Amino acid sequence: MSHDAQAADPEVDVAALTSFLDGRWGWVKDEARQILREPLFHPIHGLGIEAYRERTFEQLNEIAKSEGVTLGFPKSVGGLDDTGGFVSAFETLAHGDLSLLVKIGVQFGLFGGAIHHLGNEDQHARYLPQVMSVELPGCFAMTETGHGSDVQALRTTSVYEPETEQFVINTPDRDAFKDYIGNAARDGKLAIVFAQLITQGETHGVHAFLVPIRDEAGRPCEGVTIEDDGHKAGLHGVDNGRLAFDTVSVPREALLDRYGQVAADGAYTSPIDNRTKRFFTMLGTLVQGRVSVAGGGLSATKTALTIAVRYGLARRQFSPPDGGPEILLMDYLAHQRRLLPRLAKTYALHFAQQVLVERLDTIFHEADAPEHERRELESLAAGVKAVATWHATDTIQTCREACGGQGYLSINRLAQLKNDTDVFTTFEGDNTVLLQLVARGLLTDYRDEFGSLDTLGMVRFLADQVVDTVVEATSARQLVQSLVAALPGRDDAADLLGRDTQRALFAWREEHLIRTVALRLKRGMDDGGDPFDVFNACQDHVLEAAHAHVDGQLLEAFTNAVDRCDDDDLTTLLDTLCDLYALSTIEEHRGWYQEHGRLNAARSKAVVAAVNDLCRQLRPHALAFVDAFAIPDEAIAAPIALGDEAERQAIKNPGGWGALSR
Amino acid sequence: MSHDAQAADPEVDVAALTSFLDGRWGWVKDEARQILREPLFHPIHGLGIEAYRERTFEQLNEIAKSEGVTLGFPKSVGGLDDTGGFVSAFETLAHGDLSLLVKIGVQFGLFGGAIHHLGNEDQHARYLPQVMSVELPGCFAMTETGHGSDVQALRTTSVYEPETEQFVINTPDRDAFKDYIGNAARDGKLAIVFAQLITQGETHGVHAFLVPIRDEAGRPCEGVTIEDDGHKAGLHGVDNGRLAFDTVSVPREALLDRYGQVAADGAYTSPIDNRTKRFFTMLGTLVQGRVSVAGGGLSATKTALTIAVRYGLARRQFSPPDGGPEILLMDYLAHQRRLLPRLAKTYALHFAQQVLVERLDTIFHEADAPEHERRELESLAAGVKAVATWHATDTIQTCREACGGQGYLSINRLAQLKNDTDVFTTFEGDNTVLLQLVARGLLTDYRDEFGSLDTLGMVRFLADQVVDTVVEATSARQLVQSLVAALPGRDDAADLLGRDTQRALFAWREEHLIRTVALRLKRGMDDGGDPFDVFNACQDHVLEAAHAHVDGQLLEAFTNAVDRCDDDDLTTLLDTLCDLYALSTIEEHRGWYQEHGRLNAARSKAVVAAVNDLCRQLRPHALAFVDAFAIPDEAIAAPIALGDEAERQAIKNPGGWGALSR
Repeated sequence: MSHDAQAADPEVDVAALTSFLDGRWGWVKDEARQILREPLFHPIHGLGIEAYRERTFEQLNEIAKSEGVTLGFPKSVGGLDDTGGFVSAFETLAHGDLSLLVKIGVQFGLFGGAIHHLGNEDQHARYLPQVMSVELPGCFAMTETGHGSDVQALRTTSVYEPETEQFVINTPDRDAFKDYIGNAARDGKLAIVFAQLITQGETHGVHAFLVPIRDEAGRPCEGVTIEDDGHKAGLHGVDNGRLAFDTVSVPREALLDRYGQVAADGAYTSPIDNRTKRFFTMLGTLVQGRVSVAGGGLSATKTALTIAVRYGLARRQFSPPDGGPEILLMDYLAHQRRLLPRLAKTYALHFAQQVLVERLDTIFHEADAPEHERRELESLAAGVKAVATWHATDTIQTCREACGGQGYLSINRLAQLKNDTDVFTTFEGDNTVLLQLVARGLLTDYRDEFGSLDTLGMVRFLADQVVDTVVEATSARQLVQSLVAALPGRDDAADLLGRDTQRALFAWREEHLIRTVALRLKRGMDDGGDPFDVFNACQDHVLEAAHAHVDGQLLEAFTNAVDRCDDDDLTTLLDTLCDLYALSTIEEHRGWYQEHGRLNAARSKAVVAAVNDLCRQLRPHALAFVDAFAIPDEAIAAPIALGDEAERQAIKNPGGWGALSR
Repeated sequence: MSHDAQAADPEVDVAALTSFLDGRWGWVKDEARQILREPLFHPIHGLGIEAYRERTFEQLNEIAKSEGVTLGFPKSVGGLDDTGGFVSAFETLAHGDLSLLVKIGVQFGLFGGAIHHLGNEDQHARYLPQVMSVELPGCFAMTETGHGSDVQALRTTSVYEPETEQFVINTPDRDAFKDYIGNAARDGKLAIVFAQLITQGETHGVHAFLVPIRDEAGRPCEGVTIEDDGHKAGLHGVDNGRLAFDTVSVPREALLDRYGQVAADGAYTSPIDNRTKRFFTMLGTLVQGRVSVAGGGLSATKTALTIAVRYGLARRQFSPPDGGPEILLMDYLAHQRRLLPRLAKTYALHFAQQVLVERLDTIFHEADAPEHERRELESLAAGVKAVATWHATDTIQTCREACGGQGYLSINRLAQLKNDTDVFTTFEGDNTVLLQLVARGLLTDYRDEFGSLDTLGMVRFLADQVVDTVVEATSARQLVQSLVAALPGRDDAADLLGRDTQRALFAWREEHLIRTVALRLKRGMDDGGDPFDVFNACQDHVLEAAHAHVDGQLLEAFTNAVDRCDDDDLTTLLDTLCDLYALSTIEEHRGWYQEHGRLNAARSKAVVAAVNDLCRQLRPHALAFVDAFAIPDEAIAAPIALGDEAERQAIKNPGGWGALSR
């Protein structure tokens, strides 16, 4: 392919960079790349809904035959129990068709994961082998039309009847229909239904139940209503639908009972007394879903950047003022400004995601990991998921525009990447709600200063997604405080390219935002304000604090990656890219830094100039940075990224620009 | 419909606001609204490409029967010669299906408009009646695969042969295929082909030629290659395609010869000597296309905001900390922050668009309008098109996210609005290139300070889209300078809500950005820098200057609208919305204002607080603001905006929340 002509960057060993990026689960990623090369898995567009769903289900069945699937399941049922490996495979497959990805996530991650983490050994043995083989396609039926973010308020009920030793599952009205459920409209046979468990007249909060929804012939089971969610913006291969239950009875064994058991007589027992805490402990075990969505969004971003950068290195427009060959798009500062800071942030997210996968893997293998570690994992997953998926929406859109009319043609993939990932900012937790969850964790560090606030439920309200218990000050806060202590004075001529200065600026912003929002909340409550009004008056401040915290985690992850890289050339390169991430983030918030006296006008202007300068410095390595993602050409698929544009230029100017096109 | 229950806002006379917004061409808009109510024109999604194209063509033929089409054509062929009315009808139809909109734009606006503005009386009489009736569907074949932004560099040739009195149209290679051409893949019979005119061995630049592409039976004419552009991100009803010509002969009369004539012997004559100036004068007459795209993008934005605001006023999530009914999304500050500043900017763009349409209408009816007025119209059209279409992409995406999972379902329209309008930032001039065109106009005001720079082609390079001639200082610059003079000192406690303060801040930013970029360019050239490097080093600065200029034009238009409103209640309301537009724009640039000493830290923070405060003040009127767009329910189409969500809430809480949902 003629883009190979551009691939030679004498300063960068792309294979070494790939290997560094791939890390511990590189072998899994290579196997997943191999799968993406097979024709069945090549991206496709413009298929009708039915044909698309059929193809996706066929792909899913093919995937079920691969070893990768077993990575995510316990050894007791023949799995490899390698969570990090499973997520790594998932992330890599996200370079391919995203309908298949979501279908994999639903079947193995959500449906299989819930049985794995919420069920007992009998349930594992009975169901998981069929989940892995896709003989038993299933649904994860949590969200209802009326309640998506506020999952504690789900309205589906499951009432235990001791006479029959059965649970009766019921949907009260249309507002409580299970909605947007993958595998529901076409393929699913069994659903995990989240419902309020009621026994002996008492409600014990939301629990998960195994409920058959289709019989062997594919007809809806008695009492089960199935609707198709119909045409969506994207993910046309995923059969999302609605489920409703009209007093459907299931046996007592249908309860996934790790965190709550019902005896034959209806007596309820649980290892966790508090109902809210119990539910969020259950949800916490499903953190893998959020980590996977973050990784999936990130991979789609990498695909889009690969397409846009390669096109920008082949496409020319306008001759310079003094004549000569037309200019490559990538040589325009405005084009560099569009793509390179987003590339740098993509690298930052890559390393943060790597940390996340490592921690997920560790904690899933420690039966008795301390609660604060689990909590920190959940918070990191929430933050990275929110930032990574917003970044995906923003970057893929930018890449579309950077490719002009070509970007609008489906054959060049950007349209589908946009549409398929669009909902990532909404599902597995709406991003705004997730950032509030992050903020809530940070604010609990200030509980001593809150006094009575916590008891008023204020902080709990910030993110009703996590267990309502006081956690200890996280290591994150300690780190931030030590960094803040190192911050040079506001007019100090500290080197903006110094990593310590950058880290201190990030940390100061985070610390200040959290401390002041805590004070505002406390003051509002102390003054006897209405709790919602007090919260709402600073909701933007709360979200900004959470965002600043995630920004800091990204910089930390990037910095640590640079530090552990033992190839000098790569280290220099990554260090410069990390500068671009740090300074373009500081640039974005330079209004705030000046308001708070952390940058004076001259230094703020210097940040802008430094970003431009870094763009120019990194421009010659743009191709190496995207090629290091090692996305198979078959998955990139876009002709404009695979030599088409370069070929056109060559035809137009025989022997001319082809050679110049780097 | 149950959303009507929300419609009562005792403080706002929605009908009066609609009438104020509609302005002079309100009657045309009402007629277009009536068309949108007919079933044939209801939005549709999920159709296959072929069926979609067929439906769109059927709609186009139906539209041809309406009086609205004749608005855009000269009286000599039975038209009403009411350009403003034609654009107003177009804008209103943009609330409906956008494939139809683009098809209308191609047939009547681009194809018909080119014959109208570039052709002679004979050509008008011969073709325009069939254009209006759609008996002759046609193409506007300007863009080539290799040259979209740089239209002067098109490579298709048209060589005159005096022996046969014919032009020979030729496509040299794939790079010069006409591309993305609407009406090409399925319906077009005649194309206006833009090609380099060569006669008597001399090239005279790009001219337009009428070239038949399909015979009566719908087969490609001899020598004409037609390709389908295939599946696109959106606009599935538009048959975009590629055209190539293998030495296709057309008679001498095929030249649209208003600006350049070829005699039988091949002698070339033109009223405009300079080749570049000639071409851009031709292009200038097509400014209506840009005005129309700006208006179309703006209408789609209004539709999206109507859907998201109505949903935000019905959808509830999370109970407040102290219990009670769940909270309406629109009552969260973060939700207000997402939607209301974008609503304010939509109003600002609405009034700027109104100015644009008025000026377009005036100038099209003045055969001898001064050149600088035409130039200012072109600049305003370029700027508003760029800002309006980026605003559409950003706002529709935000509305999608604000509607959560419902926003992802095609039935709720946001997906299609996003995909259909996405390419608006690219076609009729890439937005980045258009902003350079705006900047170029502004910089010519500084020509005295440039010295030799202009002759070096630097400024010309900024935007190779406009005629290369020195224009006089525009009235815009004079206005800016008088505003700057009125700016209070940096630490002055001037009221941020004072319109004079806001206008002065906008003007100072614009003036400073333009002056400093002019100085940087001059200094770079004086120092003997490479012209491209000099330009490129400050490309971001150039674009920012242009953007600031457009921001100022928006504020001016909004301010003037408030001033001319003679209903006291509406004036107060619009004034507050204008404050939100002004302050959220200043907030966005508060980093820059502090760097340049125009806001100190305290005042910068005050801007942020004022935006929050304005959001809270305007929240009760959000519904009135979107309802005043008067989009027919049939065009809104989204069930979540037409009572579905309110109904769900009512079912869940009989007699409860339905009454609360405003």
